[in-house]
Amino acid sequence: MNVNVETELATLKEKLEAMPGGENKLTMIVFSGGLDKQLAAMIIATGAAAMGMEVILFFTFWGTAALRDPAKRVGGKSFMGKMFGMMLPKGRDKLKLSQMNMAGMGTSMLKGLMQKKHVASLSELYEVAGQLSVKIYACEMSMDLMGFKREELIDYPGLEVCGVATMLAHAKESSVQFFI
Amino acid sequence: MNVNVETELATLKEKLEAMPGGENKLTMIVFSGGLDKQLAAMIIATGAAAMGMEVILFFTFWGTAALRDPAKRVGGKSFMGKMFGMMLPKGRDKLKLSQMNMAGMGTSMLKGLMQKKHVASLSELYEVAGQLSVKIYACEMSMDLMGFKREELIDYPGLEVCGVATMLAHAKESSVQFFI
Amino acid sequence: MNVNVETELATLKEKLEAMPGGENKLTMIVFSGGLDKQLAAMIIATGAAAMGMEVILFFTFWGTAALRDPAKRVGGKSFMGKMFGMMLPKGRDKLKLSQMNMAGMGTSMLKGLMQKKHVASLSELYEVAGQLSVKIYACEMSMDLMGFKREELIDYPGLEVCGVATMLAHAKESSVQFFI
Repeated sequence: MNVNVETELATLKEKLEAMPGGENKLTMIVFSGGLDKQLAAMIIATGAAAMGMEVILFFTFWGTAALRDPAKRVGGKSFMGKMFGMMLPKGRDKLKLSQMNMAGMGTSMLKGLMQKKHVASLSELYEVAGQLSVKIYACEMSMDLMGFKREELIDYPGLEVCGVATMLAHAKESSVQFFI
Repeated sequence: MNVNVETELATLKEKLEAMPGGENKLTMIVFSGGLDKQLAAMIIATGAAAMGMEVILFFTFWGTAALRDPAKRVGGKSFMGKMFGMMLPKGRDKLKLSQMNMAGMGTSMLKGLMQKKHVASLSELYEVAGQLSVKIYACEMSMDLMGFKREELIDYPGLEVCGVATMLAHAKESSVQFFI
Repeated sequence: MNVNVETELATLKEKLEAMPGGENKLTMIVFSGGLDKQLAAMIIATGAAAMGMEVILFFTFWGTAALRDPAKRVGGKSFMGKMFGMMLPKGRDKLKLSQMNMAGMGTSMLKGLMQKKHVASLSELYEVAGQLSVKIYACEMSMDLMGFKREELIDYPGLEVCGVATMLAHAKESSVQFFI
């Protein structure tokens, strides 16, 4: 084989492999804490994983409240931490619609309809996500701001706390990114 | 030509073609039913199509209400379907701003301004989108949940109902994706 | 070197370079005017720039209000322009949370917490963004609709007003895109 051709081929191969956005991977920032958007995120995530994509979820800001386990109580919180803890939904079963909540009626209606139509609930979607190795990260800065501690998060296989740089490193390799 | 080189070239070519995110294509999830976000979605969609991109819109959740045709009435709905049908906007002309709606005043102000400034209305944008072959999909699961039927959707060239997997297959080929 | 091989290599190289989504670049549409989402946008932008990515921000709709400089007053506005000018936040220091604002209490709480936890404020993030050459565009159509003029925007290095086509041209080259 001609040396020049070999070198050129190797260079092309390297470029192709290092190309950003070239992996069969989906990275999603789950910013919203609304039940509707959290459902959308988990339906997209499990759908993509079922299609063989690697899936990375980065829960940040209001979204982190969905990762709280209501059964786990943690002491030693500051006054502000306690305040936020009380004001924000205690886990995914307490999330409300981001619109048409109507004092809980819209949220109840939707949950009832989902059950009737055999649409998976948020808890069932987490179960499936775990089985399909959907990776969940909780945003370190958001947890710190809202006074959430690592120990009060749900039991989910491989759940990790990380910073925005880790999320971005995943995002730039991914062929699909969404901010929800 | 050396056989090794030929094989290597063919492999590279194949990889390049199969590369996710490599198509000149935009996939957008239109989740929100707010007039402001629906306008943004259609302005981006028609802009991208005018630039020669293939454009795929996937209307889901609150977004699906924009695809209802108020002139089409469908019978045989369940009680819940009728309820949702009444509560959700009857088509794109009834959408409200997601903020600063102020009992309709903000929405009217914006519409008035758009007319004065010769910005295309939502209906005009749909017209252009159809001419530019922007593809519109309505989310099957959302329509089922909200009790919307295929027959009450707008007349739009090539409008189809599909699941999340179809949207994801488009998204992973696309160089641009947005969740609105 | 065999001519065929040379041609094939050149073709592959060209395709690889012209591949959409192949640049180490992030394009973000900043649509929301909520303090929470504007913070998220600037944290992601500065994080990506610090990692060596080229970063493009396109402020549109409610988002444009964050680019207003409250100290700059411009005359010659229409009645509608004055109305919108009064109703929308006068710059980034007046932004409110998109949820849990609670008549300003939630917004104050968050700002207090950010200071206590040494999280950079929005103004500090703009400073860093400017130093890291994060590019900021303001959407021409939105500014026209809301009656904002170029002269009332903040002093930010390289700030430009542009249309949706410019944003899309950046987005399709970018390996990461978000709509916030």
